[in-house]
Amino acid sequence: MSDLKAGWFIEAMDSTGSAVGFRVREKLADVKTPYQHIEIYATTDFGNLMVIDGCIMLTGRENFFYHEMLTHPVLCTHPEVRHVAIIGGGDCGTLKEVLKHKNVKSVTQIDIDEQVTRLSEKYFPELCESNNDPRATLLFADGLKWIEKQAENSLDLLIIDSTDPVGVAEGLFEHPFYKLCFRALKPGGVLVQQSESPLLHTNLIADMQQKLQDVGFQSTDWLHFPQSCYPSGWWSATVARKGGELKLPYPPENCAVDTRYYNREIHKAALAKPQFWRQADKHS
Amino acid sequence: MSDLKAGWFIEAMDSTGSAVGFRVREKLADVKTPYQHIEIYATTDFGNLMVIDGCIMLTGRENFFYHEMLTHPVLCTHPEVRHVAIIGGGDCGTLKEVLKHKNVKSVTQIDIDEQVTRLSEKYFPELCESNNDPRATLLFADGLKWIEKQAENSLDLLIIDSTDPVGVAEGLFEHPFYKLCFRALKPGGVLVQQSESPLLHTNLIADMQQKLQDVGFQSTDWLHFPQSCYPSGWWSATVARKGGELKLPYPPENCAVDTRYYNREIHKAALAKPQFWRQADKHS
Repeated sequence: MSDLKAGWFIEAMDSTGSAVGFRVREKLADVKTPYQHIEIYATTDFGNLMVIDGCIMLTGRENFFYHEMLTHPVLCTHPEVRHVAIIGGGDCGTLKEVLKHKNVKSVTQIDIDEQVTRLSEKYFPELCESNNDPRATLLFADGLKWIEKQAENSLDLLIIDSTDPVGVAEGLFEHPFYKLCFRALKPGGVLVQQSESPLLHTNLIADMQQKLQDVGFQSTDWLHFPQSCYPSGWWSATVARKGGELKLPYPPENCAVDTRYYNREIHKAALAKPQFWRQADKHS
Repeated sequence: MSDLKAGWFIEAMDSTGSAVGFRVREKLADVKTPYQHIEIYATTDFGNLMVIDGCIMLTGRENFFYHEMLTHPVLCTHPEVRHVAIIGGGDCGTLKEVLKHKNVKSVTQIDIDEQVTRLSEKYFPELCESNNDPRATLLFADGLKWIEKQAENSLDLLIIDSTDPVGVAEGLFEHPFYKLCFRALKPGGVLVQQSESPLLHTNLIADMQQKLQDVGFQSTDWLHFPQSCYPSGWWSATVARKGGELKLPYPPENCAVDTRYYNREIHKAALAKPQFWRQADKHS
């Protein structure tokens, strides 16, 4: 449900009844892949803009919130993380943040659509500057099938950096996929997944925590952060740990990664729960 | 720069290059006052929507973030507050939150435009439910002229709940007004003012802190919170204290106001400073 008129790209979302948009100067690319329709625009104030199937994915100016918050809260509190997989994340922004951590020995990124990465290399080169790091492997494959083939207890951290839970990414929010993730993670391993807007998708966040616990994750939590380009401008990530307690609520020490939003204070802030969440009976 | 088409009200802001909007069912009111053009819409998912001069002011569904965060962080940490004034705030949402605090003895709301309050009474009755509290006085007058007439050292808390710093509200972000505020506040008194988006108006926040210090406020700070209906979906409030140190960083105790977003954890979260703010030389 998108609309380009009079110099603006506006995403008006039927499912939320809200719209977000940016003023654009020109369309830079329009590619139909076997999986989706990708458009790139140059905006006047937010750098380049990537749109997939009419949904705003990221802008050059403010993707740092999302990419930092999907990675550093876990990586700064889990210095033992060595082997990481990213399912989705074709723009490579999450990969870049993960590779800032020296303890990480390998990162495999599995996105179904190679064109997302090719277009990101061209129009968001700053997100792709670590793609040639020897620790990084970029695969273009179905994440669901990939995770099925992984050895049990082989991953320390699994990041699910997907689009919304409709269409191509729908299966990434369901029990069968979570079971495979649980199996592939080492004991003490952690799963992180983007989990939509705390305001608009409160029930989705609660449901995800429940599903993750259903398949065996012993402790789950979620964190939130600003993200202008997504519905409501406020976004979340859900975190789950296989065995043992999630240690996220303790601020990281000596985690000297270079960031624009994340720091120790912000780490704690992201875990503070709004009163409406505390009051909902099902979460208390 | 607004646009109503195909069932959506979209505010596309020239100054930020970003747009926010909501799907609407119908226009409920369209009033031109001596000061501004006020429109009220019924949205499909966000309750009623108030628009002033084409700018989205509030929605029924998510105004609680703004109204709670403009009031409780100060009122919960300053139990000695007795006499409060609100400049602007004609929708009465801020007034309602202030009146939740039993220690408050009087609140005077001074909005230039009576029609904002009359329309809020009709279309946002939940925000106006404390308007008849005997502690409340509603005035319709120019806030700048009102503050000039107040006795020196007469107010404990002054909340500036205005529109953006252009047009009718421009003077509320300048030295002459801040001088009058400083004069009207008691020693130890606090000023709170909405201060736009931390992402889009970082310099405005820094400038406001400087101006407030220029006129004599000894300590200033700012806090942030989600606010879907404003540009970037992330908003801020600037706080300044006349003499003595601002005690905001300490979480409030026993502040049992009924809220939907605010609580002790959120109080601390709102004060966490993003890394980009810390890194900017002028703020360090």
